[in-house]
Amino acid sequence: MQEEQQEPTPLNNLGEFGLIEKLTSKVKLRNSSSILGAGDDAAIIKGGKKLKLISTDMLVEGVHFDLLYTPLKHLGYKAAVVNFSDIYAMNGNPKQITVSIAVSNRMSVEALEEIYEGINLACELYQVDLVGGDTTSSLSGLVLSLSVIGEADETKIARRDGAKENDLICVSGDLGAAYAGLQILEREKAVFQENEKVQPDLSGKDYVLERQLKPEARKEIIEFFKKEGIVPSSMIDISDGLSSELIHLAKASNIGVQIYEEKIPIDPSTVSTMEEFKIDATLAALNGGEDYELLFTLPLDYHEQIKNAPGISIIGHVTDKAAGNFMVGKGSEQMIPLKAQGWESHKADT
Amino acid sequence: MQEEQQEPTPLNNLGEFGLIEKLTSKVKLRNSSSILGAGDDAAIIKGGKKLKLISTDMLVEGVHFDLLYTPLKHLGYKAAVVNFSDIYAMNGNPKQITVSIAVSNRMSVEALEEIYEGINLACELYQVDLVGGDTTSSLSGLVLSLSVIGEADETKIARRDGAKENDLICVSGDLGAAYAGLQILEREKAVFQENEKVQPDLSGKDYVLERQLKPEARKEIIEFFKKEGIVPSSMIDISDGLSSELIHLAKASNIGVQIYEEKIPIDPSTVSTMEEFKIDATLAALNGGEDYELLFTLPLDYHEQIKNAPGISIIGHVTDKAAGNFMVGKGSEQMIPLKAQGWESHKADT
Repeated sequence: MQEEQQEPTPLNNLGEFGLIEKLTSKVKLRNSSSILGAGDDAAIIKGGKKLKLISTDMLVEGVHFDLLYTPLKHLGYKAAVVNFSDIYAMNGNPKQITVSIAVSNRMSVEALEEIYEGINLACELYQVDLVGGDTTSSLSGLVLSLSVIGEADETKIARRDGAKENDLICVSGDLGAAYAGLQILEREKAVFQENEKVQPDLSGKDYVLERQLKPEARKEIIEFFKKEGIVPSSMIDISDGLSSELIHLAKASNIGVQIYEEKIPIDPSTVSTMEEFKIDATLAALNGGEDYELLFTLPLDYHEQIKNAPGISIIGHVTDKAAGNFMVGKGSEQMIPLKAQGWESHKADT
Repeated sequence: MQEEQQEPTPLNNLGEFGLIEKLTSKVKLRNSSSILGAGDDAAIIKGGKKLKLISTDMLVEGVHFDLLYTPLKHLGYKAAVVNFSDIYAMNGNPKQITVSIAVSNRMSVEALEEIYEGINLACELYQVDLVGGDTTSSLSGLVLSLSVIGEADETKIARRDGAKENDLICVSGDLGAAYAGLQILEREKAVFQENEKVQPDLSGKDYVLERQLKPEARKEIIEFFKKEGIVPSSMIDISDGLSSELIHLAKASNIGVQIYEEKIPIDPSTVSTMEEFKIDATLAALNGGEDYELLFTLPLDYHEQIKNAPGISIIGHVTDKAAGNFMVGKGSEQMIPLKAQGWESHKADT
């Protein structure tokens, strides 16, 4: 599904520094705090009165992405956005990123440039500066490792350990769509591998595909908090699925959680896609992951302010730790224990 | 040459969060500026009055290291030190690092722990805080990606572009030893591959082997500068070889350089090792790389202060750009043009 490269330039043609210049030539510094970007031993960033936030994420070919169906530009975009999401999840704003890429020699300069194009696009939309990195060869697949630095007011940072009994549990956007998109892509890949002439059937799947291939981070929720003077008592981004993240919050905050299945926001196209695969859409929301929505808790006092906020759903409330972590089933009112996903063997983000 | 693992624990045994807890349990925060380390979406670092420095480096199995002769603890140590070196090269001090590791499932928990042990040891010795990271699986080799955050006074930062005509050109320590160590290791690897029963002959090679396998960053030079009130006009760390780095400085500062072969500091054991391989030790110093010594320029006024400083050699001076970049040969007084290494196809550090 990827466009064919025209006359790829071998990496060796450019020379080491030519390559760096080529890759960083489109990089613009946007923040006054970014004093020096790529090109020296280190990037320079002003301290200032705010706290700095740092996070890092690694994406490995064959583990986190499949180049057969992942456009390189989208891959770069996603790699950046996934990192920004970690900073928003602290109620901060991403400001700088560094990008390290290990790439096999079979990849062309143009291919690397496409990845950077995606990263640059994300940086532009989210107002983040790419301030450095490392490009190296790999004997096998493509590896992207990004680090992000963000800023936040000390009094506004939302950690995982601040949730209190009776707090509201909220999520942004809708859940399970990225997982639904992945199912479509994997199905079409299997069809393609059986017969290369069959065109992929992606009709009507735009939304779930975009959620998988080109997710967004929830910048606007952080802006909404700022405008409304809201500070979440705890917050985390949903990268591994709602269930896992709820258990993270519960463990870190020493509380229990109770959510309601019928309150979990799921897009109709996610529901219809999951029906095709005969999987309950709630399971996709609970365990699918890669939604990059924000899961947060708020003191009850905010109820009036939040109940009609666009793009935010109240899905439950914080309980006593002893009460455990449960979902109240749709219709049945059955109490279903929430489970963290097992070790997926691919991800351990600290 | 690596110790055998006793009863390795498969990664799957621990579970995702168990693994993180295991890997980060020995991490201590040392700087008051490190407010929150691993365990949340992002690490929190105080801003303060100093500037923040960020750098990142990626090490790939089979490209930057060979697990046949690289002890994992040393690998972790080196990965950290190489990053610290980039911060010292700005005349700053490293304060925090993040570590991302992609690791194949065939690697054991104990192996990962060894890598972290090395990183933790480096952090302890250099007083740096490990504040986060990402551990993921790899379908092939081991990849380490570290990012470091440092601090520096705005007025004391040494960039690459500040060298002026007539400045002294200096280097710390001695050069070429890491390359000499690599030659020994590669030779013994070849012998081992022919006959696994032959014990490696590493006698008398401690220094060059340590320089390759467990290099140090030049923290004490930065401390010396501070104590003496010296601010280099430009500085860079020697990762790709003296010749390449001189050309970097010359290009960035828009000047020329003239160095003297007889002034280049080379350890006697480097000379004797290179003799075994029938390679001129000067070539090892110029092009070998991985020495992680500091190359810097100083205004002439500092000559008295620096000429007898331990661990610092004056190797030449800055000239007009038009004069080009040359080394005056030993004895012959021949002017030898300095050349950057060609594209090594393995490294492009921005």
